[in-house]
Amino acid sequence: MTARMEKSHAGAGRTIISVDAMGGDEGPATVVAGISYSAKKNPDIGFILHGPEDVLKPLVAKRRNLHGRCQIRNAPDVVQMEDKPSHVLRTGRETSMWSALESVRNGEATVCVSCGNTGALMLLSVMRLRKLTGIYRPAIAVLWPSRNPQGFNIMLDGGADIRADAKDLMQYALMGTSYARNGFGLTKPRVGLLNVGTEEHKGRAELKEAYDLISANARNADFEFVGFVEGRDLPGTLCDVIVTDGFTGNVALKTGEGIASLISALLREAFQYSPLSRLASVLAYTSLQRLKKRIDPRRANGGVFLGLNGTVVKSHGSADATGVSAAVKLAFELAETGFTEKLAARVASASMLDQDAATNNSDNGETE
Amino acid sequence: MTARMEKSHAGAGRTIISVDAMGGDEGPATVVAGISYSAKKNPDIGFILHGPEDVLKPLVAKRRNLHGRCQIRNAPDVVQMEDKPSHVLRTGRETSMWSALESVRNGEATVCVSCGNTGALMLLSVMRLRKLTGIYRPAIAVLWPSRNPQGFNIMLDGGADIRADAKDLMQYALMGTSYARNGFGLTKPRVGLLNVGTEEHKGRAELKEAYDLISANARNADFEFVGFVEGRDLPGTLCDVIVTDGFTGNVALKTGEGIASLISALLREAFQYSPLSRLASVLAYTSLQRLKKRIDPRRANGGVFLGLNGTVVKSHGSADATGVSAAVKLAFELAETGFTEKLAARVASASMLDQDAATNNSDNGETE
Repeated sequence: MTARMEKSHAGAGRTIISVDAMGGDEGPATVVAGISYSAKKNPDIGFILHGPEDVLKPLVAKRRNLHGRCQIRNAPDVVQMEDKPSHVLRTGRETSMWSALESVRNGEATVCVSCGNTGALMLLSVMRLRKLTGIYRPAIAVLWPSRNPQGFNIMLDGGADIRADAKDLMQYALMGTSYARNGFGLTKPRVGLLNVGTEEHKGRAELKEAYDLISANARNADFEFVGFVEGRDLPGTLCDVIVTDGFTGNVALKTGEGIASLISALLREAFQYSPLSRLASVLAYTSLQRLKKRIDPRRANGGVFLGLNGTVVKSHGSADATGVSAAVKLAFELAETGFTEKLAARVASASMLDQDAATNNSDNGETE
Repeated sequence: MTARMEKSHAGAGRTIISVDAMGGDEGPATVVAGISYSAKKNPDIGFILHGPEDVLKPLVAKRRNLHGRCQIRNAPDVVQMEDKPSHVLRTGRETSMWSALESVRNGEATVCVSCGNTGALMLLSVMRLRKLTGIYRPAIAVLWPSRNPQGFNIMLDGGADIRADAKDLMQYALMGTSYARNGFGLTKPRVGLLNVGTEEHKGRAELKEAYDLISANARNADFEFVGFVEGRDLPGTLCDVIVTDGFTGNVALKTGEGIASLISALLREAFQYSPLSRLASVLAYTSLQRLKKRIDPRRANGGVFLGLNGTVVKSHGSADATGVSAAVKLAFELAETGFTEKLAARVASASMLDQDAATNNSDNGETE
């Protein structure tokens, strides 16, 4: 419903994305280049761009395809990468990040995109947008490259909160499958719960409890629960959505990035090794570029904050224009489908199930 | 000291390695091929090979270079990959795994190599070899490929125990640096404590406490503590030894394997894409083989159980002959340096520091 409202706000049938122009490592020119690229590709997007007006105005003016499609909201301050989230919450009212979230809060946009400080963005999002009714812990959903037909898997939590109990993990399953359906068109996502390999180790109490809760919600929430999965399934084909606590998820995410960058460095060395291998790298150039694109973190870029009144897409701090544009594309797709509303409905219906399961209440709460 | 005893047992100045011939996915023929390969490369290794005599005898007889260097110990039973560790502990006296550990227990060998069921091997190792005095939780040390001069980093715990409190993590630092010194000749290893990125998240109480304990032991134990590190540093160059609990460590390990195998699958596809890229793959063949060798998990293969009276090298279940041989090589190097004794001395001296630093030193729960 909000999606409709926001469209009428735009006055041109466009879906409006609220964009924080500041805080990325590459600066506002890169963000503007990214949204201009998106504007070129998709005539249905409009933007509200937040940052110092004197900086943004000339940048936007240079991009013809943004004319009439990009409002600028003046916000003189910038959240720095090293700023403590709690400090930003106290003093950040004049920052572009705060302003960008405000446009979602007041309904001008349904999705916000920022490349800024993750911790600050998460805390501001939670405090300003508020958690959806019934949500215990919001989560960051991140994408892994995979050989599944959709080209990647969704993992959450990627680092919003270092803790997660059984109920949180169950809600992550609901949020993750909702995201998979609305953002990527999977009809019946397969969900796995991250654990370690051997039987004897399947001992973390909250994981056993989460197993039962997720299992109990699978049919009603229309996903398939494949049970416990391992680290290798994050980029694997066994499931589409993997749930875990934010500590484990963040370590796994960074580990994957580390291995990918090690391999690409070694690959570069391998191709420099001899005249023959240098020739080979020229011949294989197109194929290798295709591969690079496939596993490029800038493309599988948008970490998405789920469980709030509004959706926030966190782009990589070092995202270039391509990365920003990928995040905008994802934001657009989520706004178009009315994702937040669907997610809220899903959680509301499942929370009741959860209460039934947890308290052994016999009255039936299986309303859809 | 044990190393000397075992040498005299061998009667030929050889270092004896106790090898479980069974339990690997590839069967005993592969294990025998692996130790034969090691025997060819290194005249100073001898073997005690455990498994069903009627199976092993013909396999060994076919390998000339094993003649006079490989005793066979009959053990009719085999621990299966799906056996529960507790079940193996109760009923596994006749298994090759049990027998292989027995040779370390009675001093015939100082290091045992097995490709079998990790959980069972860990439990049997702890129960039969016993923990070193002062050790709270033994750990599995695993290797990550890296661009450090030694070619890899050591991480522990790779999955021996899903829990680890501050004292355990401090001991992992001591064990890991001892391993780095004795197995790989690093004089002053750099140690990192695995955590997640943003400041606000550095909140797990046991990690802050572990930070202080490790820091307090660094000078005395002659390592450099680099502080908190992230997942991307596991295959990075910031440190040589990374400590974490066995749950996080195991997830990271499997994630790394998953990403590496995804990339190599995509790379194969990329090279099959066009006639030009197929030609390129022929030209770059040698360089790519070199890269493959570098990141091949079969080579960085030996997970090592630390903190026991004797060392146990766990080879990958799916190890081929090359993998078995790599595990044997590592076992040989650890046996040669009298690693267990040095590790015991290191822990003994640091435990005192630890007792000074912390108050509660009563018998720590060793529940499995």
